[in-house]
Amino acid sequence: MHQTFDAALEINLLHANQAGADHNRAHFDEWGITCLNVMSSPGAGKTVLLERTLAALNQELKIAVIEGDMTTELDAERLRQYGVPVIAINTGRSCHLDSQMVSGGIHTLAQEYNPSELELVFVENVGNLVCPAEFEVGEHAKVALLSVTEGEDKPLKYPVMFQEADCLLITKTDLAPYLDIDLHRLESNVRQMNPHVRIIPLSAKTGEGLEQWFDWVRTQIQSLQIEELAIQA
Amino acid sequence: MHQTFDAALEINLLHANQAGADHNRAHFDEWGITCLNVMSSPGAGKTVLLERTLAALNQELKIAVIEGDMTTELDAERLRQYGVPVIAINTGRSCHLDSQMVSGGIHTLAQEYNPSELELVFVENVGNLVCPAEFEVGEHAKVALLSVTEGEDKPLKYPVMFQEADCLLITKTDLAPYLDIDLHRLESNVRQMNPHVRIIPLSAKTGEGLEQWFDWVRTQIQSLQIEELAIQA
Repeated sequence: MHQTFDAALEINLLHANQAGADHNRAHFDEWGITCLNVMSSPGAGKTVLLERTLAALNQELKIAVIEGDMTTELDAERLRQYGVPVIAINTGRSCHLDSQMVSGGIHTLAQEYNPSELELVFVENVGNLVCPAEFEVGEHAKVALLSVTEGEDKPLKYPVMFQEADCLLITKTDLAPYLDIDLHRLESNVRQMNPHVRIIPLSAKTGEGLEQWFDWVRTQIQSLQIEELAIQA
Repeated sequence: MHQTFDAALEINLLHANQAGADHNRAHFDEWGITCLNVMSSPGAGKTVLLERTLAALNQELKIAVIEGDMTTELDAERLRQYGVPVIAINTGRSCHLDSQMVSGGIHTLAQEYNPSELELVFVENVGNLVCPAEFEVGEHAKVALLSVTEGEDKPLKYPVMFQEADCLLITKTDLAPYLDIDLHRLESNVRQMNPHVRIIPLSAKTGEGLEQWFDWVRTQIQSLQIEELAIQA
């Protein structure tokens, strides 16, 4: 979040964003779509994670991606190779996706595809461990990635992301043997910020943790379906 | 930078920041201090770089550090062990240092130490590859770090940081053998954004590049001294 020298303005900004997020969420719920907001520092492995996920779950689930980047469609192009709808949003100078940008993405998606046929939308946020955590976009759950190369102190130094996450993927575990990192201390630092977050150590290279991640994604979709049935009953 | 739904406000924000940066810069010039603003994603190695730099140059140069973090004094404590003045600034929810925060740091420094005896001030920014690049703090030069683990596409996806940098340190080169990274392509992507930036591949672990980095720092101090002599002449 930027300091604007005006606390009221910051509150208004987050308030306007939340109203837009509620609007997006209502669309997702109407269409029976589970939306997951995927966030991390640049280069922690968000796009590789989505590549592995699309490769594994594309036959089982109807998936789309809303892909946020400041510039370029490099990541969007990588994900389009998996044959799923990918809506690219260039944020320009903005350091995070906000609900208004994602609303644009949702409406483009709904124009080009039948949204009621979709079951899962991943929002890949701009690479930034700070601001994306403060701007809801209408997601049902927040997924944060932290690479083992970033160091075990990060949950203490960038607390909001870790407090907000529903699932934390500790990525690039294949590199841990080459680093001076204490994974137990990292996990205990995460727990200090968020006792209940699901933590999955993962390597897109060796495949470690991918099955647990896929199961967690399936559980998110099932919880939403159970919730809907309860509302209908 | 955040979208504020108000272009005029964004301009005012950057304008107010620039006025503060000019004020800080005037102080640095008055005291004969060279100020370097050190920026990167979280975990790219800013604090380790400063540890190595203080260990090597502390006898040769009078150095102080202004240390920005959202929360905690973890990094400030690490650097204080080298016996240099370290002013810690906690930015709270803010994702970057701005000139007003650094002004507070400078005035604290000037109260506790004789600033005219200092030659070099490092400002270690909040870990964020986006926003710090837009907010000058009064520095004479900008130093950006990009770790090899972040991937060769980052200069294209986060252009402002690479356009603004005077020196780019490609860190953690000791990990390159374990990664699928094309260092030539990374360098060519950097050049596409900034043909004139000084690029130094560096490993705080093996020591690769550290001497070139120290030389670059010395050159910054000398250029400022030559500039001052020219003004006095």
